[in-house]
Amino acid sequence: MLKVAILGGSGYTGSELLRLLLNHPDVEVTAVTSERSSGLLIADTFLNFRNTALKFESLNLKTLIKKADLFFLCLPHRTSQDTVAFLHNAGKRVIDLSADYRLKSAKVYKEWYKIPHLFSPLLKKAVYGLPEIRRKKIKNASIVANPGCYPVSAILGLAPVMGEDFIDTNSIIIDSKSGTSGAGRSPAQPFMFCEVNESVKAYAVTVHRHTPEIEQELSYLSKKKIKIIFTPHLIPMDRGMLSTVYVRLKKKTALSTVQKVYKEFYSGEPFVRILKNGTYPATKAVKGSNYCDISIFLDNRSGKGQTLVIVSAIDNLLKGASGSAVQNMNIMYGFDETAGLTVSPPSP
Amino acid sequence: MLKVAILGGSGYTGSELLRLLLNHPDVEVTAVTSERSSGLLIADTFLNFRNTALKFESLNLKTLIKKADLFFLCLPHRTSQDTVAFLHNAGKRVIDLSADYRLKSAKVYKEWYKIPHLFSPLLKKAVYGLPEIRRKKIKNASIVANPGCYPVSAILGLAPVMGEDFIDTNSIIIDSKSGTSGAGRSPAQPFMFCEVNESVKAYAVTVHRHTPEIEQELSYLSKKKIKIIFTPHLIPMDRGMLSTVYVRLKKKTALSTVQKVYKEFYSGEPFVRILKNGTYPATKAVKGSNYCDISIFLDNRSGKGQTLVIVSAIDNLLKGASGSAVQNMNIMYGFDETAGLTVSPPSP
Amino acid sequence: MLKVAILGGSGYTGSELLRLLLNHPDVEVTAVTSERSSGLLIADTFLNFRNTALKFESLNLKTLIKKADLFFLCLPHRTSQDTVAFLHNAGKRVIDLSADYRLKSAKVYKEWYKIPHLFSPLLKKAVYGLPEIRRKKIKNASIVANPGCYPVSAILGLAPVMGEDFIDTNSIIIDSKSGTSGAGRSPAQPFMFCEVNESVKAYAVTVHRHTPEIEQELSYLSKKKIKIIFTPHLIPMDRGMLSTVYVRLKKKTALSTVQKVYKEFYSGEPFVRILKNGTYPATKAVKGSNYCDISIFLDNRSGKGQTLVIVSAIDNLLKGASGSAVQNMNIMYGFDETAGLTVSPPSP
Amino acid sequence: MLKVAILGGSGYTGSELLRLLLNHPDVEVTAVTSERSSGLLIADTFLNFRNTALKFESLNLKTLIKKADLFFLCLPHRTSQDTVAFLHNAGKRVIDLSADYRLKSAKVYKEWYKIPHLFSPLLKKAVYGLPEIRRKKIKNASIVANPGCYPVSAILGLAPVMGEDFIDTNSIIIDSKSGTSGAGRSPAQPFMFCEVNESVKAYAVTVHRHTPEIEQELSYLSKKKIKIIFTPHLIPMDRGMLSTVYVRLKKKTALSTVQKVYKEFYSGEPFVRILKNGTYPATKAVKGSNYCDISIFLDNRSGKGQTLVIVSAIDNLLKGASGSAVQNMNIMYGFDETAGLTVSPPSP
Repeated sequence: MLKVAILGGSGYTGSELLRLLLNHPDVEVTAVTSERSSGLLIADTFLNFRNTALKFESLNLKTLIKKADLFFLCLPHRTSQDTVAFLHNAGKRVIDLSADYRLKSAKVYKEWYKIPHLFSPLLKKAVYGLPEIRRKKIKNASIVANPGCYPVSAILGLAPVMGEDFIDTNSIIIDSKSGTSGAGRSPAQPFMFCEVNESVKAYAVTVHRHTPEIEQELSYLSKKKIKIIFTPHLIPMDRGMLSTVYVRLKKKTALSTVQKVYKEFYSGEPFVRILKNGTYPATKAVKGSNYCDISIFLDNRSGKGQTLVIVSAIDNLLKGASGSAVQNMNIMYGFDETAGLTVSPPSP
Repeated sequence: MLKVAILGGSGYTGSELLRLLLNHPDVEVTAVTSERSSGLLIADTFLNFRNTALKFESLNLKTLIKKADLFFLCLPHRTSQDTVAFLHNAGKRVIDLSADYRLKSAKVYKEWYKIPHLFSPLLKKAVYGLPEIRRKKIKNASIVANPGCYPVSAILGLAPVMGEDFIDTNSIIIDSKSGTSGAGRSPAQPFMFCEVNESVKAYAVTVHRHTPEIEQELSYLSKKKIKIIFTPHLIPMDRGMLSTVYVRLKKKTALSTVQKVYKEFYSGEPFVRILKNGTYPATKAVKGSNYCDISIFLDNRSGKGQTLVIVSAIDNLLKGASGSAVQNMNIMYGFDETAGLTVSPPSP
Repeated sequence: MLKVAILGGSGYTGSELLRLLLNHPDVEVTAVTSERSSGLLIADTFLNFRNTALKFESLNLKTLIKKADLFFLCLPHRTSQDTVAFLHNAGKRVIDLSADYRLKSAKVYKEWYKIPHLFSPLLKKAVYGLPEIRRKKIKNASIVANPGCYPVSAILGLAPVMGEDFIDTNSIIIDSKSGTSGAGRSPAQPFMFCEVNESVKAYAVTVHRHTPEIEQELSYLSKKKIKIIFTPHLIPMDRGMLSTVYVRLKKKTALSTVQKVYKEFYSGEPFVRILKNGTYPATKAVKGSNYCDISIFLDNRSGKGQTLVIVSAIDNLLKGASGSAVQNMNIMYGFDETAGLTVSPPSP
Repeated sequence: MLKVAILGGSGYTGSELLRLLLNHPDVEVTAVTSERSSGLLIADTFLNFRNTALKFESLNLKTLIKKADLFFLCLPHRTSQDTVAFLHNAGKRVIDLSADYRLKSAKVYKEWYKIPHLFSPLLKKAVYGLPEIRRKKIKNASIVANPGCYPVSAILGLAPVMGEDFIDTNSIIIDSKSGTSGAGRSPAQPFMFCEVNESVKAYAVTVHRHTPEIEQELSYLSKKKIKIIFTPHLIPMDRGMLSTVYVRLKKKTALSTVQKVYKEFYSGEPFVRILKNGTYPATKAVKGSNYCDISIFLDNRSGKGQTLVIVSAIDNLLKGASGSAVQNMNIMYGFDETAGLTVSPPSP
C-alpha cells in the first residue's frame, strides 16, 4: 500500500481527494492537514466522512515527511511554492493541486499571479498533469502540477484538433460555465446562497488566471504560440463545468472527418467519451465521475467559412481537480489508471 | 382606458403579461383565453393572481373581437399565423409574441419552422418589436412581432456597434445562457426538476430557430448580410438570460471609444443600462424587471487583433417577452414608455 | 407625502422595504443608512435599484431626525434598543423591525437574548405590529414592534382558533420551513451556496428566539398562558416560509366548522387568504407578495381524538418583515391598507 | 457471484439500484427491464452509466426466470402483485421495492390503495425489509417488501423508544420533507423545474399512503395499536429526506436517558448514526450514502410535560429505497452487510 498525505484537506478539493483515496485499493492515507481544524476528527468537519477515524493535523513538514511517500498539495497559491520545493528536496514525489507549478515560465507566472516564483528550476522539472496529453512524462515525474478545472475542460475539448491544419489557431474562443464549488469553502459574500441562486454571471472577463495555462498547453499541442479568448461564468449549482469552444476552420472539412480525429485521439482513453452525433453533454451526466464528455458540431452557415463548436463537460472537483490527481497517481505508480475512479456516479 | 385581450394566457409568457397589464395605469384587460382552462378563474391556475376576478375563456374570435382594441397573442407558432391575419383584417392592432411574424421572408420562415407561411403580405406589414432599434415604426404599426428572448439579449448587446467600421461582422459568436421558464409550462421530461437542477447543458447547437431572427436584425442594423454562430444553454434557474457575445475588431480601437459608442446609442433609453467599467451583469440584478444590463470588455492579448466581449443580461420573461410587449404597447398608444414597468424587482 | 427614513438599509430586509416604499404613492424616502456603504449609491449595492439616486448615509441621529417623521429600523438587536428610545423621545414614530420591542417582558427578553433591556417602560408602549390581531392599537402607536417572520406565519395560522374551546392549547406544535434570505446578507460558512443547496436541515431545535414571541401573542389571543414546541428548518431557496401547525382538538368538531371560524376571523382581511378545501399553500404562490395563504386539514384517524393541521405560507421578507412594516405604516397614517402592496408577484 | 435481475429499471429507483449492484463485489446483474426503453443501451438512457454494456429488455418473465436467482422489483403498484407471486411460485427470491407487499393486511391495503390485493397469503410470507428492526426474518425471507422512503426515516427515528413506557404512543406527529426524486421520472406539471424550484409545499396532508405502513411497524415495535399524524412536504432539491418527529413523554425523563436508549438500540448498526448532542442532521451529509443520521432533542418548557423532538435524515433513493434493498440482499445471502454500500458520498 502506497502511503499518501494530503496537505490542505479542509477545502472542497482536499475533501474530495480524501474521499477518492479512502476508496482506493492500493493506497493508505496517513495524514491530512488543516490549520483551522487541526486536532479535529475529519468526520466532524465533513459529515460525509463520519465513519473515518482520521484527524486533521497541522502542517508540520518535518513530521509529515516520515509519514508518506506521495504528497498531494491542496494549499493556496504561494504556499505551495515552498512546500513543493521542500518535499522535492527531501526526495518525495508531489502532486500539487495549486497553480504554482503549472506554468513553465516564471515570468508568465509573475505576470498573472503578481508574485515572483522563487523556484524556477523546479518549474522545468514539474510535469503538467493532464494524462491525455502528457501521460508518459507523468509516469516518471517527481513533481506533477495538477491542472486547473477550466484548463482541463478547455484543453480536452481542443487537444485532438490542435495539430490539425484545418483549424485557424488564432480564432479560439472558450466560453465556460462553472458550478460554485470551484470558488472554495471560505465564506465570501458573492458566494452566499442568496447571491448565487437564481443567477448566472460572467466574471474575470479577459483576465482569468487560467488563461495562460490553457495557452501554454494548446501551444505545446499545436507547436505554435496560441492566444485564446476565455470567459468564465458562475452557475447556480454545486458541481459541474461546461465549456463551449469555438474554432474557425481554415479549409472545408466534413463533420465526420473531425469526429474521426476526436475518436482516434481519445481511443483507449478511460475517461474521455465522445458522444454520439447530435447528443449534448450535460454536467449532471458526469457529476461525481472522472469523465469528460465531449460533443462536436460544425456550423456551415457562415459565408466566411465553417466554425467548429466543441462542448465538453466535466465535474470540476473530479476530472477538474481531485479525480485527475488520483489518475495521475495511478500513472506514477503503475496502478490501474482507473483504480479508485470506477464507481458510477449517483443520478439524479 | 385601452381595452386589451390576451390570447393564450395559460403559459408563463401570457401569465407574466397579464401581471404587468393588471398593474398598468392606462389599460383594462377584458379577456384572457385558454383552451385547457376555459371557464376557470385565472386565480385558480396562477396562484399569484388569486385576487383577480378574471376567468379564462376559450378562443372564440367572433366574440373576442368586440371586447378589445389591442390583442396580445401568446399562441403557439402556426396558430398565430391565422389569428393575426383575422384580427388584422378586422381592423384590430396586434402584438404577436409568437415567432410567426418576426421573419420578413416567408422562405426563411419555412426553412427554419418547417411549415409554409400563408400570409406573406402581412409579413411585410409587421414591425419587429424591439423599441431600441425600431421605435418609430412600432408607433404606427398595426402588427408588432414581439422579439424572441435570445434575440433581445443578443441584438441589444450588438446593436451599437453593428454600423461601426471597426468590427468584423463576419466574426460574431453569441453564447447564451437561459433560465428554464423559457421552455414553457407543458410537462416534458427534459424540464423536470431532477433533470434540470444541478446541471448545465448546451442544446440546439447550430440549429436554434432564433438564429435567422438575430441575423435579420443585425443585417438591418449593419446594412450587410450577417451570419452568426449562436449556442443556447439551459441553466438551473427559473428566469434570466445572459448572452456573452464575441466580435473581432478590424482596426485598433480603445475600450473607451467602444464604451462611448454604447452610451450614446442607448442615451435616453429607459431600459438599457451600460454598466460601469469592470462591473458584471448578473441575471439576478434584472430578474423581475424590464432592464437589459450590458457590460463591454476588450481583449487585447491576441496577436491577430482585438476581440470585443459583450455581456448582456435580461429577464427572459420580461425584456425577453412580456415586458417588451408592454413597452411596445406603450409606444403604439402614446403612453409613457415605462408605464406598468417601473416597479423595482424583488431581490434576492 | 409622508417623509420616511430607513435605518439599516443594506440588508435584505432594509432593501426590500426600500423597494416597497419607492413604489408607495403616499411616501417619500428621505434617508437610508448603512455604515459599511455610507456615501455609496444604493444602486451600486443593490443592482435591482440602479435607477435610484439615493445614497447610503451613516447613522447620525441628530441629522436624520430632521429628515423624516416616520423611522423604519432594520438594525441589529441591541442597537435598536437605544435608537428607538432616542427617536421616541424626539417625538418621532418608529416601526422597529428588530426583536428589541416585541416582547412585553424585559425578563423574558433577557432570558432569550442574553442581554438586559434598558428601556422597559417603552416595552409597554410598543405595540406588536401584526395588523390582523392588533390593528386598532397599531393605528395610534408611536412605537410599532414589527413581528418576526416565523411568528407571523405561526400566529396567523393559529389566531382564529386560539379563543375556541375546542382546541387543546397545551398541544401546539409548529414546524416551520424557511428560505435562506432569513439568515441575512453577512457572509457565513453555513449559508454559502454549496452548504445550503441540495440540503434541508433543522436548527435551533427547542431554543429559537422566536419562541417566546409566538407564545406571547398566542397567550394574548387565548387569554391563557401558552407554551409551544417550535422547530425551524432551512430550505434551499431564497424566499418563502411555510409553517405546518398541529393542534389537538378537545371535542369533536367538523372541518366545516373550523373552516367557518377561519373565514369569519379573516373576513375583510386584505392579505390573508383561506384556500379552498384540499388545496395546498406553496411558498412560490406568495413569493413577492404580502399574502399569507392558509389551508386547514383535520385528522380524524387517531383513537385519542382529532388533530387540526394548519399550513400557512408567506414570503419571509414581505408579510414576514418589510411588507408587514408597510402595512403597519398604512394603518398608522390612515393610508389605504394595501397601498404599495398591490402589485401581483412575478411567477415563476 | 449471485445473479440478480432488476425489473423496472428506467426510473430513479431502478437506476440507483443498478448503480449500487454494478459496484457490488458479490453480484452479477444479468438483466434490467424497461418497456419504454427495451432494446436500448442503459448507457443511452442514464448518462452516468455510459460505460456499461447492459441493455434494457422487456419484461418477459419466462425468459427472465432463467437468468437470475434474486429479483429486484421496481415496478408500479398493482403490477408488482402478480410478478412477485409468479417469481415466488417459481422458487425465486424477491426484493419488492413497490408498496404491494408491505402491508400485512389486505384490507388495509385496499383501503389506502383502492384496489384489492389478490395474493393475501403471500402478504403473510413477505417480510418488511427494514434491517434495523427485522434483520433475522429478512435473512431467510423469500419475499422482502422493501420499505417506503418516508417510513424508513420515520420508523428509524422512532424505533428505539416505541417499547419504552415513558412515551405517549398516542401523540406521535411526523413532519417530513422530501427531495423531488421521490416523485419519479415521469413528466408531470407539478414536478417541472419552474414549479418545484424556489418553493416548498405540503401535500397529501392526512391522506398519504405511507401512513398505514408507518403505523404497522410502530405498532409491531410497541405492541400497541399506533395511529400517527403524518405530513409530507416537497423540497426544491433532487435527493434527501428529513423527518422531524414529535412525541410527548408520559413521565419525566432526562435527555441523557433517551440518548442512551438510542445509542444502545442502534449499537452495532452499520448505517444508523446518532449524532452528538446539539448537532443537526442535514440531508446533504447523507446524500449519496446509505446512512440514516439521527439527533434527539427534549423540550422541557411546556407545562403539560416534555416533548421529544427527533430529527432523522436519509437519502430517499438510498436508505429510503435502493440502498436498503442492497442491504437486505446482503443479509439474505450472508454477504457483508455493508458490501456495495461503503463508498463515502461526494460532497458538496
